Amino acid sequence: MAFSERIARLKSSLIREILAAAQRPEVMSFAGGLPAEPMLPKVDWADMPASMGQYGMSEGEPALREAIAAEARALGVPCDASQVLIVSGSQQTLDLASKLFIDPGTEVLLEAPTYLAALQAFQLFGADCISVPQEADGPELAALRQRLENHKPAFAYLIPTFQNPSATRYSEAKREAVAALLDEFGVTLIEDEPYRELVFDEGQATPIVSRLKQASWIYTGTVSKTLLPGLRVGYLIATKDLYPHLLRLKQSADLHTNRIGQWQALQWLGSEQYRGHLAELRSFYRIRRDAMQAALLEHFGDLAEWEIPQGGLFFWLTLKQPLDTRTLLDAALAQNVAFMPGEPFFIDPDANPGHLRLNFSHVAPERLSEGLRRLAAVIRDAQNL
Amino acid sequence: MAFSERIARLKSSLIREILAAAQRPEVMSFAGGLPAEPMLPKVDWADMPASMGQYGMSEGEPALREAIAAEARALGVPCDASQVLIVSGSQQTLDLASKLFIDPGTEVLLEAPTYLAALQAFQLFGADCISVPQEADGPELAALRQRLENHKPAFAYLIPTFQNPSATRYSEAKREAVAALLDEFGVTLIEDEPYRELVFDEGQATPIVSRLKQASWIYTGTVSKTLLPGLRVGYLIATKDLYPHLLRLKQSADLHTNRIGQWQALQWLGSEQYRGHLAELRSFYRIRRDAMQAALLEHFGDLAEWEIPQGGLFFWLTLKQPLDTRTLLDAALAQNVAFMPGEPFFIDPDANPGHLRLNFSHVAPERLSEGLRRLAAVIRDAQNL
Repeated sequence: MAFSERIARLKSSLIREILAAAQRPEVMSFAGGLPAEPMLPKVDWADMPASMGQYGMSEGEPALREAIAAEARALGVPCDASQVLIVSGSQQTLDLASKLFIDPGTEVLLEAPTYLAALQAFQLFGADCISVPQEADGPELAALRQRLENHKPAFAYLIPTFQNPSATRYSEAKREAVAALLDEFGVTLIEDEPYRELVFDEGQATPIVSRLKQASWIYTGTVSKTLLPGLRVGYLIATKDLYPHLLRLKQSADLHTNRIGQWQALQWLGSEQYRGHLAELRSFYRIRRDAMQAALLEHFGDLAEWEIPQGGLFFWLTLKQPLDTRTLLDAALAQNVAFMPGEPFFIDPDANPGHLRLNFSHVAPERLSEGLRRLAAVIRDAQNL
Repeated sequence: MAFSERIARLKSSLIREILAAAQRPEVMSFAGGLPAEPMLPKVDWADMPASMGQYGMSEGEPALREAIAAEARALGVPCDASQVLIVSGSQQTLDLASKLFIDPGTEVLLEAPTYLAALQAFQLFGADCISVPQEADGPELAALRQRLENHKPAFAYLIPTFQNPSATRYSEAKREAVAALLDEFGVTLIEDEPYRELVFDEGQATPIVSRLKQASWIYTGTVSKTLLPGLRVGYLIATKDLYPHLLRLKQSADLHTNRIGQWQALQWLGSEQYRGHLAELRSFYRIRRDAMQAALLEHFGDLAEWEIPQGGLFFWLTLKQPLDTRTLLDAALAQNVAFMPGEPFFIDPDANPGHLRLNFSHVAPERLSEGLRRLAAVIRDAQNL
């Protein structure tokens, strides 16, 4: 069987395998990034018009595109509805952007660490990935300048607000500096914002694309983290030089995004009901975040360092005594605990041992301490071998 | 702006432009392939479990995969649910298969004519397309053998049952012969079956994949033509050597297909209600097909030749005096009539003038004769110039 050469780059997803193992009900899973089941809002379908069953436009539903453009403008993103493309979850933005930009060997600039599924999507298309180290307030600017001077990336892919996995929220100063650098070097920005609305501690986070003066950009988001991921409704907003190509690539990929989910998303976006739901969601997750912080202090205080996430769904731990955390998985699962090793979030996993990504939205608070106690014991065992 | 080299192959879709022009309410459109609005079934959402809002499996909903495997087995396709992948409309099968097989220059074998969006998807990935002429009962077998002797296609893409655009249904003898040839040369088959259930004149049509003994295969279908296209729910069934790669490509493309639409599809597949709906659909479309045939005889009897379609949504006309039908579009639209030129359905459009694809599901019967009269007049005018 002769497959395309990209299939040799198609990696097995460690996340898939961990999540499969974490399905057993007795497993306490810190591995996934699923919204908490009790916080999935009850939705109503009774008023959906029958016309939503017919084929739709590749661009997406006009009213939904208007609503998304209005929300983006309120954040400072200069755009109108004609720049909005509804996608089948924001994962599809990564696929479309890969098709638009990446040939084998095309350079792409990423944060280190970065979102695993983005890294895999870009590598599938043959990207030569270059990374910039992440600090607590955003990328190391000197390193970013150096990368831009020495490379010609087709785009920079950044997740500036509560990144998965590091939970970093870029400071306003770093946002400004990153925009200026991308403008200076004329590098397109893909700004991925799935977690923007999951904020626990308020703070400024103006989108970087709103500060660009020259560079082209794609801004992408989703309703998956705040409404219902099962709808598979996301969006991208793109500058006018990119949009027509992205639209044709979307049409070739799946004609258009399902209209049922688009209609449901439209019922919520911008509504009073949605604002109320988001407020509930934030306070629910804030409580879980705080409980996780307390349990981490109890069990991991001597083992690891971390920042308290101000939004998103994850703690990102750095072990004081690094080891390849992938080697801990079997022992943890034997103790009925699942977690996500940090190595796969880096371009060069072997050179970046000693991080763990721990989700705080899934494990019930009463099992939290026990789960983290077991995980800490697994780490201590491994470090004493 | 440096795009990937595939963007140079990203064609503007003539269909998109024609459909946009055909939106004007005064236009009688024979151009599209939309299900008739009155035949979209009324669906109920009240019983959908809240869990359908959560993230799901990349493979698709287990119960839906079981139902699809059972239907396929009833057609003679040897498979089980583990070989079923739910996709975001069967267009996505073309995207996933392109990623699995096509590098720039990879040879791919197609019917002439073939489905336009498949041709575009394969060409986007750089396929070198080779075609086999279609006869009334399927491909020319001598030509097929000759192509297989002289080329090494990664796969053959065939639509053996009521093809879009030609409406051809392969005979059982040709299905058998095609399977034997693909086995002999070890060429993978992609069998695309969106129209199988839209049958007006009964006849045997056992899937070709069920006859293969050696070759790998992908069998793909959708609920778009018989239930609701707006759900964007399709499926593929693949041999076990292909499935794991397709699954990972699916995950990278959009994580999973929307669960709302999957749940709705499951309510219908295999049900008594669905059987009743399909029977109504067939008799509704049969009446429209017969009305179209009568109107064509009246206005096109001296202009063109055609076979009466035994299923599907289209008549495929061959002008007795060929001309490039793309040149007729503006004149037709000026008369408020839209149709689909035949040239884009061929690898080499300029070498294949003189076909029209006419949809019979959309224009109301009372306007049919007037629409075809105007279209015939446009053709006559052009031929007399």
